[in-house]
Amino acid sequence: MARAKNVLWIMCDQLRYDYLGCTGHPTLKTPNIDAMAKRGVLFSKAYVQSPICGPSRMSFYTGRYMRSHGSHWNGWPLRVGEPTLGDHLKKIGVRNVLVGKTHMAPDLEGMKALGIPPESMIGVHVAECGFEPYERDDGLHPTGRPRPKYDEYLRSQGFEATNPWEHWANSGAADDGSLQNGWLLVHADKAARVPDEHSETPYMTRRAMDFITEAETDGRPWCLHLSYIKPHWPYIAPEPYASMYSTSDIIPVIRSERERSSPHPVFGAYMDMRYSRNMARDEAREKVIPTYMGLITQIDDQMGVLMQFLEERGLLDTTMIVFTSDHGDYLGDHWMGEKDLFHEQSAKIPLIIIDPTREADATRGTRSDALVEGIDLAPTFVDYFGGKVPGHILEGRSLLPLLRGPTPSDWRKVAFSEYDYAMQDVRLKLNQPIERCRLFMVFDGRWKYIHASGFRPMLYDLETDPEEYVDRGDDPECAGIIARLQAELFDWALHPNDHITTPREKIAAYADNQLQVRGGVLIGIWDEKELAAIKDGIAQRAKM
Amino acid sequence: MARAKNVLWIMCDQLRYDYLGCTGHPTLKTPNIDAMAKRGVLFSKAYVQSPICGPSRMSFYTGRYMRSHGSHWNGWPLRVGEPTLGDHLKKIGVRNVLVGKTHMAPDLEGMKALGIPPESMIGVHVAECGFEPYERDDGLHPTGRPRPKYDEYLRSQGFEATNPWEHWANSGAADDGSLQNGWLLVHADKAARVPDEHSETPYMTRRAMDFITEAETDGRPWCLHLSYIKPHWPYIAPEPYASMYSTSDIIPVIRSERERSSPHPVFGAYMDMRYSRNMARDEAREKVIPTYMGLITQIDDQMGVLMQFLEERGLLDTTMIVFTSDHGDYLGDHWMGEKDLFHEQSAKIPLIIIDPTREADATRGTRSDALVEGIDLAPTFVDYFGGKVPGHILEGRSLLPLLRGPTPSDWRKVAFSEYDYAMQDVRLKLNQPIERCRLFMVFDGRWKYIHASGFRPMLYDLETDPEEYVDRGDDPECAGIIARLQAELFDWALHPNDHITTPREKIAAYADNQLQVRGGVLIGIWDEKELAAIKDGIAQRAKM
Repeated sequence: MARAKNVLWIMCDQLRYDYLGCTGHPTLKTPNIDAMAKRGVLFSKAYVQSPICGPSRMSFYTGRYMRSHGSHWNGWPLRVGEPTLGDHLKKIGVRNVLVGKTHMAPDLEGMKALGIPPESMIGVHVAECGFEPYERDDGLHPTGRPRPKYDEYLRSQGFEATNPWEHWANSGAADDGSLQNGWLLVHADKAARVPDEHSETPYMTRRAMDFITEAETDGRPWCLHLSYIKPHWPYIAPEPYASMYSTSDIIPVIRSERERSSPHPVFGAYMDMRYSRNMARDEAREKVIPTYMGLITQIDDQMGVLMQFLEERGLLDTTMIVFTSDHGDYLGDHWMGEKDLFHEQSAKIPLIIIDPTREADATRGTRSDALVEGIDLAPTFVDYFGGKVPGHILEGRSLLPLLRGPTPSDWRKVAFSEYDYAMQDVRLKLNQPIERCRLFMVFDGRWKYIHASGFRPMLYDLETDPEEYVDRGDDPECAGIIARLQAELFDWALHPNDHITTPREKIAAYADNQLQVRGGVLIGIWDEKELAAIKDGIAQRAKM
Repeated sequence: MARAKNVLWIMCDQLRYDYLGCTGHPTLKTPNIDAMAKRGVLFSKAYVQSPICGPSRMSFYTGRYMRSHGSHWNGWPLRVGEPTLGDHLKKIGVRNVLVGKTHMAPDLEGMKALGIPPESMIGVHVAECGFEPYERDDGLHPTGRPRPKYDEYLRSQGFEATNPWEHWANSGAADDGSLQNGWLLVHADKAARVPDEHSETPYMTRRAMDFITEAETDGRPWCLHLSYIKPHWPYIAPEPYASMYSTSDIIPVIRSERERSSPHPVFGAYMDMRYSRNMARDEAREKVIPTYMGLITQIDDQMGVLMQFLEERGLLDTTMIVFTSDHGDYLGDHWMGEKDLFHEQSAKIPLIIIDPTREADATRGTRSDALVEGIDLAPTFVDYFGGKVPGHILEGRSLLPLLRGPTPSDWRKVAFSEYDYAMQDVRLKLNQPIERCRLFMVFDGRWKYIHASGFRPMLYDLETDPEEYVDRGDDPECAGIIARLQAELFDWALHPNDHITTPREKIAAYADNQLQVRGGVLIGIWDEKELAAIKDGIAQRAKM
């Protein structure tokens, strides 16, 4: 009997593309992730559908663009009835399980209107974005919010506090052992006040292994989303990672004075955000980046633990393994902190997929330069498990063909990403109406076009300007390119997958089989003779 | 105590704009509807959001464009959780009641996934598109489909048959009394085999009056959707309406030979549909149009009955009355039958609104040339009942300001309508992929631009060419106009009301009140001093 297939889908938070050994970082050590890339395909042009946690994740979890799922920002509930990966997997008998972060906010009002108790099985499925929450932990736990299980764990290890997450795991220790607020960048170089084994990344790895162990007795196939909070801020790492990298390991900053002289208004407003002004300072980069790197190597070490665990349990042969992130981090590049815009540092993510089947042997260790979107994972998983991909709902495309051979000739020519800054101070600075704080990226592999509602577009040529220093959005020479990418965006905007209740097969059958006439609805037929001829035609066709 | 407000929302099916006395028909008699126009405002530029029953109605019932509600065709279920007028009215204690047609198909699969029993109260609300179905009757009842109550009624009156609706009310009687198939155009000049009082329009009127009578004891305010099937086909009228009009009453056909010489491919494919070829024949027009007119005068007579009933019950002072249609009927104009495209005969509807309040006295009997959309009714009703219009969900605008004064200066400059021909033979003729059978109308009051996915646009200038004979979509002189209206469509497509779970007020409060920092999420803050300054600033602002 064939063993059940599984998917282990590992997601880091805020891990940018170029901060792995296998994607070219010269000083950062990620030997285990590099080894994963050798066993699978490394995608070099994978883009998220919005460079911020909530909407990016809702796109991953629904396989749909932000304009389709409607959750534009962290904490904007995903509407009840929006189909998720979990819904599609449920139909084919696969458990969709969460260990870690989703950033899902339940649509309690919508659930109430439909009479769905949040604590019921369906209620939990809806509230948890289609996941079975083995352990949910959104990773940000200021005092006053509901507490994660991780708090209990820390307490059980002797780390007592009102907020153990903040007080121990995400605060720094000064040389004298005293507490330093881990939220503040100035303390990013301090070591966390817990040892490595009790910090978040190893804890979540163990929770994933707990699930996998338990799942063996259950027997059903599973898709496990192991979703780490790190290297997302608070930027604070336990030892030995806190001391692992120094300022000499930092790669040169990617920015140009030119970017600050008469920038696009939206870019200008972001450069002026507090976090950007702070992260643009060398002092901040020197505090933050070595820690960011340490947190990544910590994840890498956990990948080693996890891969060995899977090997020992004989799961490597049947488990598709995905390693990715939900968006990047500017880290001071382009005079920016956080994510928000569509530079490579923000919108591009690392993506490694190991397809364990024999069909994928030829691509192992290769790099794919195909344009890939975060929404491609959901159809890839459905496809991997042998399900039929519901093309009228999912807006991504299965990556299986790319994992098992050359990129199909009809593969997408442009990738899209979106952003809504209505929740940010940028809206106030730019004095934009709430409904018009929209940004859209169209990238064709060379030209990156950004439509900004109410402003001129931005445009970067990644062939002649791979660092994206020169915004050519107002360059008359680029009018043709802008028109072409704008036309792509226009076409995309006009054709969302909005009719989620009606599959294409049903649509095709209707005209193909003359179901209207057969159902007795006779529109505009002249007389009995014409009606008889039509019915005769249908009968003839049915015989064929 | 103020008496409860009500809304009586009367909708005809397939009644085109120019087939009323008050909208200019020279021979058609509609004295009662004309009298309603004198008591209210007649809108001369009201457009449906899709010129076919199902999607047009779903737009009326949700207040949202087709691209937002996703129900592109008759029978495509409205997705569970798509908010309806009924949801908005429910929140403010108003009953939303149906007598007649909605063309709603329930999303049974979606309901099942969410565990909503279709027979539960919430299930019925969802399945009936937010209506309380006092009497639902979609008006088309070929044998084999579920039967309407109207069948029982006919039987109770002695009209026995397997399918009384078809056999008696929608079949013609030859001179010898024998049955003539009412679906066929050749029999449109025959009288229906039931007397006027037992035909569908008076029956539904009585059902509406039954509801209104019962509602008096209930006491809650109501919005009653009285939704007639007529003058929609089967084109068959009872006496005296069957003999009321003759071929000499038919207005001249609106069509030009020029339209048939090298038409736009989509227009060409529609002219080639069976119903178009048939309706383009004078013989068919002469059979159908006098009957179509008779059916309208029958509705007009019922309006007389209904208005007198409301007056006798003292309801005219508190009841907003709306008279409209879900789309038009080409009736052979432009060599077309049915609806499908965006000529005035198809996409424009009659719309009369009587606002009984004193504030509306100044506009009584006037005509408004403002661009109005079907989706404006839902917000108008919520507004009339004193509710807050949820602007992040509804895409239409309340018409109350236009009923009570001059058109606001920021009123819409363009109206939109959409169409999806994936279910029709036209798709096969044009060999279009299912997802790309999309048409979009943008009308600015003069220029009507039609975007057709995969084809050149169409364009009509209603100022110099009010009959829409000349498609200027490939006229180089119109490139500027096309670019302008295309830009309007682009902007519309990029900004749907997709975040239905998150109201604008919540969004506004977030940045305005620095809720992120106040919630303890401290992004990119350098040190204790900066943090203290930020907190101080927030505290200062809170005191102001």
